[in-house]
Amino acid sequence: MKVLIIGGGGLVGQKLGKALAARGHLRDTEITSLVLADVVDPAPIDAPFAVERKTCDIADRASVDSLIEADTDVIYLLAAIVSGQAEEEFDLGYAINMMGTLNVLERARALETKPVVVFTSSIAVYGGEVPDPIIDHTFLNPQTSYGAQKAIGELLLNDYSRKGYVDGRGFRLPTISVRPGKPNRAASSFMSSILREPLNGQEAICPVGEDFPHYYLSPRKCVENLIKGAEIPTEDLGMNRCMMMPGRTWTIRQLVDAMTAVAGPEAAKLIKWESQPEIERIVNGWRFDMRPEKSIALGLEADESFEDNIRYYLEDDKPKP
Amino acid sequence: MKVLIIGGGGLVGQKLGKALAARGHLRDTEITSLVLADVVDPAPIDAPFAVERKTCDIADRASVDSLIEADTDVIYLLAAIVSGQAEEEFDLGYAINMMGTLNVLERARALETKPVVVFTSSIAVYGGEVPDPIIDHTFLNPQTSYGAQKAIGELLLNDYSRKGYVDGRGFRLPTISVRPGKPNRAASSFMSSILREPLNGQEAICPVGEDFPHYYLSPRKCVENLIKGAEIPTEDLGMNRCMMMPGRTWTIRQLVDAMTAVAGPEAAKLIKWESQPEIERIVNGWRFDMRPEKSIALGLEADESFEDNIRYYLEDDKPKP
Repeated sequence: MKVLIIGGGGLVGQKLGKALAARGHLRDTEITSLVLADVVDPAPIDAPFAVERKTCDIADRASVDSLIEADTDVIYLLAAIVSGQAEEEFDLGYAINMMGTLNVLERARALETKPVVVFTSSIAVYGGEVPDPIIDHTFLNPQTSYGAQKAIGELLLNDYSRKGYVDGRGFRLPTISVRPGKPNRAASSFMSSILREPLNGQEAICPVGEDFPHYYLSPRKCVENLIKGAEIPTEDLGMNRCMMMPGRTWTIRQLVDAMTAVAGPEAAKLIKWESQPEIERIVNGWRFDMRPEKSIALGLEADESFEDNIRYYLEDDKPKP
Repeated sequence: MKVLIIGGGGLVGQKLGKALAARGHLRDTEITSLVLADVVDPAPIDAPFAVERKTCDIADRASVDSLIEADTDVIYLLAAIVSGQAEEEFDLGYAINMMGTLNVLERARALETKPVVVFTSSIAVYGGEVPDPIIDHTFLNPQTSYGAQKAIGELLLNDYSRKGYVDGRGFRLPTISVRPGKPNRAASSFMSSILREPLNGQEAICPVGEDFPHYYLSPRKCVENLIKGAEIPTEDLGMNRCMMMPGRTWTIRQLVDAMTAVAGPEAAKLIKWESQPEIERIVNGWRFDMRPEKSIALGLEADESFEDNIRYYLEDDKPKP
């Protein structure tokens, strides 16, 4: 089995690659080859099978056509322009998040393998005047360009699957926290940095109040769910291949309390509370009363407590001194 | 005020052009110019203002850029590859219904007028495992490529509007009946031809049973609603610019009974009942328990009875001997 991870240089892509390397198989079949693709050369991964690293601009159809080899069995499409950047750079967001998705599906359609395509959507597809709670079949009413592009990706994935061109499955990711590394241009970036930076002994800015509720999942559980997601039997997906990935709703205060419970009281003192209206405008449009019934029924899982998220960061990602 | 009708050669586009000519104004402003654009040269319309007729391939960005003049105030985007054809010709459907819509919005974004864009979506955006009744905010779960493309158009229209690039409003049209002219490649084509052909003294085939329920609107009311739709104050549109256009649900039997009531018993004898599985497969995925609350609150209207639809056909469209 040949697996391709588009966005293989990113946080989730790298962890997914490592998890596949540790596992060695997918969909009851031995993995013989893994391709990590990203806009810049992805970091290498040790694996018991061949790992290729490639660069690709998914907005460019020819680049996608040469990336995806004819014998590819499973394609993870994780690459995206994140929410804050897609809001600022309108054209780039559509080029990558909409046309990039279309280019991948078009190339996948041309393959003889009818590849499984695992697409990461986002809870940013929900918003506006739609009643709580949010269920899998809640009206998609995005209030950001990123959310609109992800909702379009879902429609494309479903239609290409319905026509038999790919075997698609899409998952609306909760906000991933604690993310390792540097802040990015997602409006949700602070939801990791207010934990990560203090855990690393550095200051961080929280642009919202401590009562702000949001829907979270750890990177470790996200990767486990993406592997399970590729393995869901096609016949269990029903008439819509896209669903929420399980997460849990916590307030900022609960995140900080979890950090204190796991790592002691000093870290929280490094958080600076400074309102940022543009960030607040975006994130206040996001929904948090989520009921991911379909993915839970299919075996996907959320974290048990946010203390787990903190522990996973310390175990998996905290830079060693 | 300069008005452009893309799809100005089609049934609704021609009737809309004539209605605007009879009216002379739109959005409290005198119409000074009307452009009718279509893939083939639209038929001329008599009007008290200048009427230009143009050809355009909306799948081609340059063609759209040269079509839409800088001082355009209102754009009606009615052009589409219909449902049956979009299902058979996958690439063409996406080229026209998705990329064509994107091309029009991109050109509109470049104008200084911030044009009003009136987009015709379809009730084909609904489908799959979603409970009745269908409301404006029911999850869009199309089970045809046409429905997927229209749902994508809605997301684009909303996002371009939210960003302030256009003042969009979209209406999910019921099936328009009685359509004049010839059958087209819409899966719903029979829903006009089983009335139109018998009213014209010709035979027609009904591919579904007489209990088949569906959601209908006359061409006359559709055009009235499209004019009202352009005039809805922006602030009344809320956080989603797209809504159902009002219609009414009737069975095939009710359609035929209405024809008999208005035109006598001979016409119904010209209907041949012949099951067509591919048509049935598509139309059985369509929904009919519709609650178009938003558009009704905004002043749009359905027909009073299907006998009205029959009368409108006889008054407006039946070929004169």
